Order: sequence, then structure tokens, then C-alpha cells
Amino acid sequence: MCDACVMGRVAARLGRRGVLAALAAAPAMVAPAMAQPVRSTGFGRVVDLTHALSPAFPTFGGTPAIEMEQAFFIAKDGYNLFTIKHAEHVGTHFDAPLHFSANGASVDAIPLEQLVCPLVVLDVRAKAANDPDYQVTPEDVAAHEAQQGRIPQGACVALNSGWDAHVATPRFRNAQADGSMRFPGFRPDVAPLLAGRGVLGVAVDTLSLDHGGSKDFAFHTAWLGSGRWGIECVANLGALPPTGATIVAAAPKIAGGTGGPGRVLALA
Amino acid sequence: MCDACVMGRVAARLGRRGVLAALAAAPAMVAPAMAQPVRSTGFGRVVDLTHALSPAFPTFGGTPAIEMEQAFFIAKDGYNLFTIKHAEHVGTHFDAPLHFSANGASVDAIPLEQLVCPLVVLDVRAKAANDPDYQVTPEDVAAHEAQQGRIPQGACVALNSGWDAHVATPRFRNAQADGSMRFPGFRPDVAPLLAGRGVLGVAVDTLSLDHGGSKDFAFHTAWLGSGRWGIECVANLGALPPTGATIVAAAPKIAGGTGGPGRVLALA
Repeated sequence: MCDACVMGRVAARLGRRGVLAALAAAPAMVAPAMAQPVRSTGFGRVVDLTHALSPAFPTFGGTPAIEMEQAFFIAKDGYNLFTIKHAEHVGTHFDAPLHFSANGASVDAIPLEQLVCPLVVLDVRAKAANDPDYQVTPEDVAAHEAQQGRIPQGACVALNSGWDAHVATPRFRNAQADGSMRFPGFRPDVAPLLAGRGVLGVAVDTLSLDHGGSKDFAFHTAWLGSGRWGIECVANLGALPPTGATIVAAAPKIAGGTGGPGRVLALA
Repeated sequence: MCDACVMGRVAARLGRRGVLAALAAAPAMVAPAMAQPVRSTGFGRVVDLTHALSPAFPTFGGTPAIEMEQAFFIAKDGYNLFTIKHAEHVGTHFDAPLHFSANGASVDAIPLEQLVCPLVVLDVRAKAANDPDYQVTPEDVAAHEAQQGRIPQGACVALNSGWDAHVATPRFRNAQADGSMRFPGFRPDVAPLLAGRGVLGVAVDTLSLDHGGSKDFAFHTAWLGSGRWGIECVANLGALPPTGATIVAAAPKIAGGTGGPGRVLALA
């Protein structure tokens, strides 16, 4: 099974998803440029939310994540240097709007101010531990807000399913006999809810914003298609509070790119 | 002229540089792991210190910076995705200790706490405007400290030569008829001075930590060889104060890499 086999189904489904219509109609669908200026009240701890990228890192398509070839050697050349080659969407990586839209912003065009913002962590580890198909629901968001207060304007909302603990095992992709995968993600009807809160970015600790069993990538299409961004394969969300940290989502600045591996960290 | 032509001379010179001996003997040569915990008192402004990376971005060797090939197309496949290929040291990019040492830390192994730290900007624009061979001297550091106070432990020291203004023109590489280049950098005897202040990282707005005319890469060898890190081709240092900002030097987390393009920003 390859990316194209699964994801090629998306195009045929566009325009038929109620969630898309709901998202497009949401009155709180603020333009990203209207996000509030970034403010922080200081931090004392830096938490790395990034997995190390290597050829063995699990990928959506199941192929090696990166090729590295040493081109210069210190003993011979005076310095070490590798040439690297990879698909954009490997490792802890960004999804720019352009990844799932014809004319959305490329990764270099996401305003930097959006990428340094309050971080909200939705903890669904208990549910996902018993259900690898678990999708975050509007009720999960409501439960978070009942305890932690309303999700702040301009936040990044991260899904902590506990899946980063599986990154070195086959459980991370959790491939089935028919080639499909089973891991948690965001349910598509959470997209308009988060958009209504003024959220501009989401993050997941799995291989996809949509759950592994998704056949239509409805969350990707709704979220990225509305000019928002995402991060996949984040690590260490369990080291952070449900609210109060600041994420620094350091997206690669590659002109015209649809995303790519970057360094994601939190100031807590 | 290529990287190997110039840089291959380094190996032959190793062990003969007085500056290396001085650096190795410096009593304040603290282990990077001993850096103080990161503290910030808050920030209100995010400044992007990163140039956008494209095939046309100037490189040390003069070859295209990156190859991008679109592998999936939204109209056909349901999403857009590129495959990218490049040498590690292109764009606004990191130099890990391993770049100029046999067994130094690779880029993924630089402690993240080192990469979020006080940023000191040395402004030598006036001197560099009249002298493309200008190298930052110990006297420049002393002049900065006389006005701004002692460089803080664990800081990143950035060279603002004004060279980022030339990034879209041949002046950035400033290649001469004989193939050599002319642009500013750090003079090698600044390395032990900064090491003595507990500095762990440096940044330049040019293509190399050493000045373009360097024939031996003595600053690279001393600085990276002592377990410290660097960033080349940073942008927008003129938007920052001489001291008081925090740099977030978001290095790529590629296992075993000698460096690579990343996102560099400052909180001011």
C-alpha cells in the first residue's frame, strides 16, 4: 500500500462532506492574519517535541524516511557533510495548507507569529489505549474546556494519544493485513469547533491528523483547506501541562514547500 | 571552485594553529552540558532570522541549493507533496561539531537547552561596508561589552555585518576572478575569547563562520572542534537589540547529521 493508493480517494470525495460546508460557514472562521500578537509571561523549561529523524523512522507509506549519503569526509576533505533526500512529510513534520489545497499557503508562507503560540494539550491517552481507532470528539474538547477554561485565540491544539511511546515499534503504524493502519486522530467535526475558537494549528503524536483508518482524509481537507496548519509525529506531549505552555513550531522555510520536517519545542 | 577545493586544505593545517592550542587550554572551556538553565523574562515580538530556501539561494560552492521534485499532485492524487534533495549546509543552516571534527556531536545531539539562549548581536556593519574581508576582532567584543555589559554565560553571539542585504545579489558570495570569495566572518582569535565567556553558539549573516578569504577555516576548526555550534546565513539581525533578545535556534533533528537548514528566530 502506498500514499497514493489511500490518499488518491480524497479528490473524488471533495465537495460532498458536510463538515466542509460547516467549516466554510463558521462565523468565527477568522483569517489567520487576524491572530492576536504573541505574548508570553516567561518560561523556565524547554521541552523537545521532536523525534530524531533517521531512515528507520516510521512513515505513512511504509518506505524509508530519509536517504543520507556522506559526500565529504573529514580525514580526506577536512570536514564531514552529507547529502540528504526525502519526501517532505517524514519525521516530526509540518503540513502546510498547500499540502491539501490547490492554492493554499506553502510552508514558508505560514506567518511566523502563528507558529509561536499558546499550546493546549488534549489528553485522550486512556481512551486511545483501548481503542486504536480513537478519534478526538467535540465532547473531548468540551471536557478539556470545562476543566481548563476556553481554548485561547490563536492556540495550537495538540492531541496526546500516547502514541509516541510506540514510535520504535510496529504499533506506531499498526498496519493491518489489508494494508490499512490503525492509530488515533482528530474526528472531522472537531475542525469547525476549533476554527470557531480561533485555533490556527493542530498537532498529533501519530502519523496523520486523521485517524489511521480514514478513507477520505476529511480532517486534513477541512483543516488545511481552510488555510490552517498541522504537525504530525510530535513527541513528549506528556511532559506538558494541559494549558499554559508556549509552542515554538519551527517550520522549515522552504519556498513553495507543502511542509517538511522541523524542530518543534515548547516553553513551559 | 567547489567546497572540496577550498576546504580540503583544512586537514593539512590541523595541529599547526596556535589558536587551537589556546582554545584547548582555556580554563573557561566549560563543557556544554554545564550551561545554565534557560530563563526568560517574557517577550512580545517574534523576529524571523531565517532566509527562505530555494534552488537559487546562494551556496558556498556556487551550486544550486536544493532540488525539489513534485511527486504528488492534488488534482490527480488528492494532495501535493515534493521530494527534496540537498547538501546539509544550505540556506540558513546549522554547523554541528561533527561538521569539523571526527567525533563531535551530530546536529540531533546538540542539547536543546543550548539552542534557546540569550542572543548577543555584534554590529560591525560600518566596518564591513568598507571592507568585505572584515573579521570580527577581540576589540570588537571588548567594545560591545563596554557598552552592553559582559556577554552572558551560555549566549549565542551573532555577527551582524549587514551582509544579509546582499542575499539576492552576487555581492553575497562576492566571488573573485580567482574563485575566492570575499565576505566578513569571525577572526580565529575571537574563538577562545568567546569560549572564555561560556558562549556555546555563534551565528553569522554570511556564508561561513570564517571570512570568505579564509584558506584554512581556522575559526570553524577551533569553534566546532571544541564541541560548540554555529549558524550561517542568518537574516534580520538589524531588527534586534545588541543584547536582551532570546534566540530559538531550531536545529533540524536528523540523526547523525553534520548540520542542516533549520528555522532560526528571536523572541525580543
